[in-house]
This record gives sequence, C-alpha cells and structure tokens, in this order.
Amino acid sequence: MSMDRLQKRIIELKNPTVVGLDPRPEYVPPQILAEHIAEKGETLEAAADAFYAFNCGLIDALADLVPAVKPQSAYYEMLGPAGVMALYKTVVYAKSKGLYVILDGKRNDIGPSAEAYAEAYLGRVTVGKAELSAFDADSLTINAYLGSDGVSPFLNACKRFDKSIFALVKTSNPSSGELQDLLCGGGDRTLYTAVGDLLERISLDSVGEYGYSAVGAVVGATYPSDAQALRRRLKNTFFLVPGYGSQGGSAEDVAPCFDRYGRGAIVNSSRAILCAWKKTAAGDGSDYQRAAREEAIRMQKDIAAVVAVC
Amino acid sequence: MSMDRLQKRIIELKNPTVVGLDPRPEYVPPQILAEHIAEKGETLEAAADAFYAFNCGLIDALADLVPAVKPQSAYYEMLGPAGVMALYKTVVYAKSKGLYVILDGKRNDIGPSAEAYAEAYLGRVTVGKAELSAFDADSLTINAYLGSDGVSPFLNACKRFDKSIFALVKTSNPSSGELQDLLCGGGDRTLYTAVGDLLERISLDSVGEYGYSAVGAVVGATYPSDAQALRRRLKNTFFLVPGYGSQGGSAEDVAPCFDRYGRGAIVNSSRAILCAWKKTAAGDGSDYQRAAREEAIRMQKDIAAVVAVC
Repeated sequence: MSMDRLQKRIIELKNPTVVGLDPRPEYVPPQILAEHIAEKGETLEAAADAFYAFNCGLIDALADLVPAVKPQSAYYEMLGPAGVMALYKTVVYAKSKGLYVILDGKRNDIGPSAEAYAEAYLGRVTVGKAELSAFDADSLTINAYLGSDGVSPFLNACKRFDKSIFALVKTSNPSSGELQDLLCGGGDRTLYTAVGDLLERISLDSVGEYGYSAVGAVVGATYPSDAQALRRRLKNTFFLVPGYGSQGGSAEDVAPCFDRYGRGAIVNSSRAILCAWKKTAAGDGSDYQRAAREEAIRMQKDIAAVVAVC
Repeated sequence: MSMDRLQKRIIELKNPTVVGLDPRPEYVPPQILAEHIAEKGETLEAAADAFYAFNCGLIDALADLVPAVKPQSAYYEMLGPAGVMALYKTVVYAKSKGLYVILDGKRNDIGPSAEAYAEAYLGRVTVGKAELSAFDADSLTINAYLGSDGVSPFLNACKRFDKSIFALVKTSNPSSGELQDLLCGGGDRTLYTAVGDLLERISLDSVGEYGYSAVGAVVGATYPSDAQALRRRLKNTFFLVPGYGSQGGSAEDVAPCFDRYGRGAIVNSSRAILCAWKKTAAGDGSDYQRAAREEAIRMQKDIAAVVAVC
C-alpha cells in the first residue's frame, strides 16, 4: 500500500521529512541559470531546463537521506508547457532514485473532471488501445471543498494504482482560519474538522499495515494546538505538514502531528533547503548540493530531538 | 476592465453562454483522432494534437456566436506535458479569434505558490531581464478554501494585468452541500455564503462599469434557489454557471443567476456541444462543426426565452 511505502521509508531513514522542490529563477544557483540562458536565451524553456538541472542536483544530494520530495506544480506551470515538461522529468528522475513523489497540485473538480485529474497524476489514460501514464506520481495533494464526489475519483485511483492523496484540512497560512476555523453545522466543530472527518469516513477501507489510509491530510505546523486535536481525532489519517522553517513552525510545533510511535506525519521544507547555498561562505551557489544536504540533516536532527521515529 | 470586456461581448452577441473545451479521446471525431494516431502512434502526443485540432475546429465554428470558451485544464493535464502544450495553443488560438478565455484550473495555494499560479495563468514571469507570459488567459477559476491570502495574489494579478478570476462558491455536483451547505459561524450563514461574502468584500475596489468586480463566483445551475439568494446578496459578483444541460440544469434554473438587465452571469455547456456530432444523422463526426454550432444556437435560444440580455 502506497502510504505504507512512505511510512516504511521514513522508518528506514529515520527521517520524517520531505523536501519541497519549489524552484524560482532566483533560487537556482546563478551559474546553472546562466548556462541555460546562454543556450536558449532569456526564455521560459531556458528557465525550465535550469529548474530540471537544479532539481537533479538536489535529488542526487538528498536521495539517500530523505524519503520523499514534493514538487509544487505552480512553479513549473509558471513556465508554461516547458515548465510542465520539467515537472514531468523531475517526477521521473526522483522516482528513479527511490524517492516517494508527492505532487503538490491541490487539484479539485467534480465527476469527470476530477477523474481526468486523477488519471493525469495517479492513473492512466486510454488512447486507442494503449493505456498510458501522464505523470505517474506516488501521491497528489487535493482540495476537498467540493465534497466527497470531488474526492472519490482520486481515492478510486489510489486503490486501483496503489497511490495516495493528501487533502487540505488546516493550512499553514495566516488567513487559513477565515473559512477553515468557522464553527459549522450548529455544533462546536470547525470546518477543517468537518473536512477531516469526511476524509477519514470515506477512506476507512484503504487503511494499511501502519494504520493509515490512502487519504492523508495537509495540516500546517503553524497551528500546533489544532494539529494536536486533529491527530487525536483522525486516527487513520497521515499528515503532510507544511509551515516548518520559513513560515515559522518549529520542531516543537510539528511534534503533535506524530503518533506515539513517531509515525503518521511527514514535515515539509522547501525554501530553506533550496536556498541554503545563499547562506554559505561561498554564497555563489557553487556548493548548493552540500548546502542543501547540510540543511536537510540539520532539519532531520532538529525534529529527531522531539520526535523518535520507530 | 476584464470583466467588463466579457459583459460587453455578451451584450454584443446577445449570448450569455460559454463553451467548455473539455476534450477526451472519445469526444474527438474518430477521423481526427485516427489521423493523429496514424502520424504519432497511440501516444499522449497524438491525442494532444487531436485535441488541439478538434478545439480549433470548434473555435472556428463558434467564434462569431459565443463570447467565451472555458478550457478545463484537467483534460489537458491528463495527457502530460504534450496535453499542456495543446492547452497553451488552444488559449492562443481562441484569443486570436476574439474569444474571452476562462481557464478552468480551480487553482489554489498560499503566498508565493499562489503568486506563481497567478503569474502562470494571468501575469508574467521574469527570466533574466525578460518579462514573459506563460499562458496569458483572460480569466482563471480558483478555489478559496485557504482564505483571503490565497485569493489576494490572484486579485493582484487581475488588477495589474487586467484579468478576472472566478472562485468556487456553490458548485453544481451532488455532494456540493456536504461542506458548502454547512451552517457556519454560529449564525444562519452557509459556508458557501461565507465564501461569497469574503470574495465580495476583498474585491470591491475592482468594480467596473457594469457593476461587477474582477472576482466572480462559480455558482451551479443545479441549485437554483441557492443561486437566487446569492444573486440578491452578492451585488458586485459576476457568476460563472456550470450545471446546465448534461448535469440537469434547465434555462429556468439558470435564470436566477442573472440581474434584472440579463447581465452578471454566463452559463457553461461542455459535453452537449463537444459531443453534438454523436447525435446527428451522419454520427461519424464529419459534421462536428455544424453540430456544435447548432447546439450552441439551441442553447442560446433556450436561455434567451427566459433571460433578455440588454
């Protein structure tokens, strides 16, 4: 089962962290960007090639250390079709190095359109007599605002193709509470709790050997008491935790997302790792791989001080 | 102002409808698909080329009749990077024929990632010293579950680049009420009303000459009494209305979405127009352009019988 594979790899590496591959032109070491601009000019194609080269370097530096990467689709779509090609190639390369790939697309739609997204990222599409994969990630993030029939097509793809999804529950941003914290349904249940309950309810038949289903939840590190309440309530839901580092979440803040075995959650860091080269003595990006690795190790140790994965 | 341009074109054509370009291999006339498979095999690239050829034919048949098209991103992403290239080319072609292009991506994220999506679909990205457009649609659909700081980056792009957005408020699918209809905040306000209020509040400074802001709402035709209440409440919010036709919404059902001048809303139809060729005497797809045009005219008349655009 897909979520089991992720948990198993986290245990093997004793590292419940995921590296967000969220490139922007200004995050790429200048010499890599310059090299591709020299070849293809100041174009979207040059930036896309630079993103892919940067990602490959990061993956090479991190694949034996971290269990997963999370490319954020927005940064690739920003470069148009060439960027989406770089995303595709990044997924292929990361998987070839044994990494679990969570494609962060926050996709959502209804019926046939949700099916199309599920086919795109998790499943297969039929052309003539051929069954073909488009992106074939291990996991996809989704948004559940449309209710269960906006989630089911993704869950069906998870079951059929052995994949997982993570749906937004309580996000890490400052205004996440405007809607998500509203008390709903006449009781004392927040909207994000209602979303969490819905996800847990529809995914019970996909629970694997570690006790977690194919449908995980995005739960921000920036609201630790909410995360703690969700961890107690959603026994079968694996958490993907953004908000550590740049957004202000500490190791203490992410600790409540884990169960008593130090399982059931994975913490994301993006910019701190991608841009670690900007803080080294060289500062020119020539040591971006070593800098990324050192930051990833620092993060691993920081979290290990409060969470023991066993 | 972008939403004014859409409204103006609707008035010129006396046609408040938008054609959803949601291709699947089985919707494409067999001879178009076969031609591209003959050239590139049973591949994602062949299907993507067939989608683009089909879209161009539809656009040629409809551009003097309908004001807008709405390509649904899922169906292109389903074919990987080649599909996204077909989407990009479709946007370019539709705009060249004077159509207003609403890219249906239901994108959502926070801070820098939402900015990246806004740059991708509405704005520009900087590579070296060049400012480049990736997709450059007229409008993008979004999902507001993350609150105002998940919407603001899109609204900022609307203001800067003269674009519009449509956020999901009350969707047309059967389970839309599971979350959207929950009574929220201790009062009698549903979640979808809270979302609508939030959108109206943050977009007041972008209201154009017809009284509508740059931030529209997706309001399904399948819940007409909810739509009527929203129309009365959200005075400055233009509605994008799915759910007509295949999903069961009638002209009477969409009527409450319009204001007393027959403005403030646009009704989508996708499959009924794309697949109209399956119901003709030929039935082989050779008359897909004429069939699509006849169905678009039928829909225009059907709605004109209950809504007079002036």
